[in-house]
Amino acid sequence: MERIALLGCTGSIGTQVLNVVRRHGDKYKINALVCNSNVAALVKIANEFKPCYCGVANSSGVKFIKDAFKGVFSLDFTKDALKIAATLNEVDTVIVSSSGLSALQAVTEAIRLKKKVLLATKEILVSAGKLITNLAKDNGVNLIPIDSEHSAIFQCLAAGKREQLKCIILTASGGPFLNLDIKDFQNITLEQTLNHPKWNMGKKITVDSATMMNKGLEVIEAKWLFGLNLNQISCVIHPQSIIHSMVEFNDSSVICQMSYPNMEIPIQFALSCPDRFTTNVASLDFEKIKSLEFYKIDENKFPCFNLAQDAAKQDLGLVLNAANEVAVEEYLYSKIGFSDIARTVEYSLNKFHNIKIENFDDVFYFDDLIKKDTYGHINKRY
Amino acid sequence: MERIALLGCTGSIGTQVLNVVRRHGDKYKINALVCNSNVAALVKIANEFKPCYCGVANSSGVKFIKDAFKGVFSLDFTKDALKIAATLNEVDTVIVSSSGLSALQAVTEAIRLKKKVLLATKEILVSAGKLITNLAKDNGVNLIPIDSEHSAIFQCLAAGKREQLKCIILTASGGPFLNLDIKDFQNITLEQTLNHPKWNMGKKITVDSATMMNKGLEVIEAKWLFGLNLNQISCVIHPQSIIHSMVEFNDSSVICQMSYPNMEIPIQFALSCPDRFTTNVASLDFEKIKSLEFYKIDENKFPCFNLAQDAAKQDLGLVLNAANEVAVEEYLYSKIGFSDIARTVEYSLNKFHNIKIENFDDVFYFDDLIKKDTYGHINKRY
Repeated sequence: MERIALLGCTGSIGTQVLNVVRRHGDKYKINALVCNSNVAALVKIANEFKPCYCGVANSSGVKFIKDAFKGVFSLDFTKDALKIAATLNEVDTVIVSSSGLSALQAVTEAIRLKKKVLLATKEILVSAGKLITNLAKDNGVNLIPIDSEHSAIFQCLAAGKREQLKCIILTASGGPFLNLDIKDFQNITLEQTLNHPKWNMGKKITVDSATMMNKGLEVIEAKWLFGLNLNQISCVIHPQSIIHSMVEFNDSSVICQMSYPNMEIPIQFALSCPDRFTTNVASLDFEKIKSLEFYKIDENKFPCFNLAQDAAKQDLGLVLNAANEVAVEEYLYSKIGFSDIARTVEYSLNKFHNIKIENFDDVFYFDDLIKKDTYGHINKRY
Repeated sequence: MERIALLGCTGSIGTQVLNVVRRHGDKYKINALVCNSNVAALVKIANEFKPCYCGVANSSGVKFIKDAFKGVFSLDFTKDALKIAATLNEVDTVIVSSSGLSALQAVTEAIRLKKKVLLATKEILVSAGKLITNLAKDNGVNLIPIDSEHSAIFQCLAAGKREQLKCIILTASGGPFLNLDIKDFQNITLEQTLNHPKWNMGKKITVDSATMMNKGLEVIEAKWLFGLNLNQISCVIHPQSIIHSMVEFNDSSVICQMSYPNMEIPIQFALSCPDRFTTNVASLDFEKIKSLEFYKIDENKFPCFNLAQDAAKQDLGLVLNAANEVAVEEYLYSKIGFSDIARTVEYSLNKFHNIKIENFDDVFYFDDLIKKDTYGHINKRY
């Protein structure tokens, strides 16, 4: 029985992880659950899965709920909840689907304890990829991706040997604005942005998909996860989201992984690999699918993708991610417009182009500094 | 240095095998060459590759050439040439690209000697799949496919474990008549038939591709090669011939192998696996490819595909193949029309629906019997 800590159990990925565990209760046991602040959802889940540990990382504003649940269920309200859950003796595997960098320390502790780490949160690798992957290497820990694209690469790499790898191709759905005329980008509404054509996801990643920042973040994530040079990673628009990504080997043979867009497969494979179990995902019906299309990414429409490429080259993933997190949050609060996300990120990349990250303290320090500065910039500018 | 016997060295596959060996002369050495009757081509190849053994399997009509080359090069004119080459001590690996069943005995001998066997000739597995695969199993020999579809399956299977395999999907280009109206099938010319839109191949397989008998033969080949039930094998038309075939695992994850249509990759992978070396095949450019399409096979247009499915269910691969070999030969001599190929095969399947193949002698006996009967039928009927 594999004992799991689920960090970020009430979000989109967390909910789908629980579905996988429900279906394979003979193989997996949830022993720790942590949410950010959605205590009501956490309690419901905890009642079902009966973990050893149940934490709420961000208790600001939930005090009244804390009191309401007192005695009904043992909840630990502490900002250390993620770390506590990740380091429990009763946990073999840590699934990281909490937002942003919140679980960075939990991840480093889990790696040091040589636990299995499954990463759904790309921000951690984007901001601290070098440090995290070095730490994982030093501890003999494999970081297993949950992101559908990186899971696809991970699955395809099994078809060859590592030294045969030529390059990878990440596919991108193109998001809701793939076919929008560039002159209409200034009129994009929040509702349109949150209406992704292929994937039902959390708000942050849905906005990132619409700006295509998500694909830029994934390039950086892939660079660290698979130890690639940036010139080994390319991206192509594939609106059907059937091919989740591809690997090209040195003989020009390309192996790709496909399925209907559904996170069950990558989540479950991350848990089960190298085994595979049945899922509830339907088999692909190519006669119904009819056509798989590919397009070049329009860099004029999606400046965030370009900014991410530039940031990747300059090793400024942390700046990119911090500024983008703030910009997306402010966009979700309607403080800035859709195109202002790229403008904001560009401002921060220019301002902080000189930073050097030497250790995990630097990560937290600069992440905080850049976020504060970006908030300040937005408040002044918009 | 891997020492190779190339059976069928002057045909389309043989020629491409030689290209691979030319490029990787540090790894592979041609030690035996056998052709059917194209002595002029054989001598040219032999002068370049300097094998230990050089055989001509079918010397009828080449006697004058035999005399002409006497003393210039040592050629062995004998119907046993394939077997002699396949069993040489100086040979580690036997590549079978000779036509039809001609190399069946050579293959069985090579398996008994536990040599590595690379199969480009699907007729052998279609006609004697059960016997051959059992023999290979008993001798601990893996039969390695060269056919692009089966190579694709072989490559994709490496991404998972055997017990995870749910089914395979063979892709078919659809051949030159994919979009021809069914009422125009009666006017198909030989020239049109031999003009394949995607693959440059030998005449027999080019005709088989046009009738889609080729895909039917491949279903039977796959059944034996990968030990599948027929309900685990489906086919889909994919006119671009970029996806060479696909494997679906038990979690509904589909892994496929892609490249531009070029036999270099499957030939070289059959030789090098599990290693991979560089090829001259260009990397796929998805922005140029733009679209990969899929269609259902139109069984009204392609009755040969149906006949093959029926034959597979009744374990009549040998009858199917023998009748088809004769019908295609007679079609290439313009003795019968395009649609008569299916009619002829149907006649033979009906006539010989009761045969049982118990051993290799039965294979030769029935192959001969059915071919003679099919020739007789064609001569009487057309």
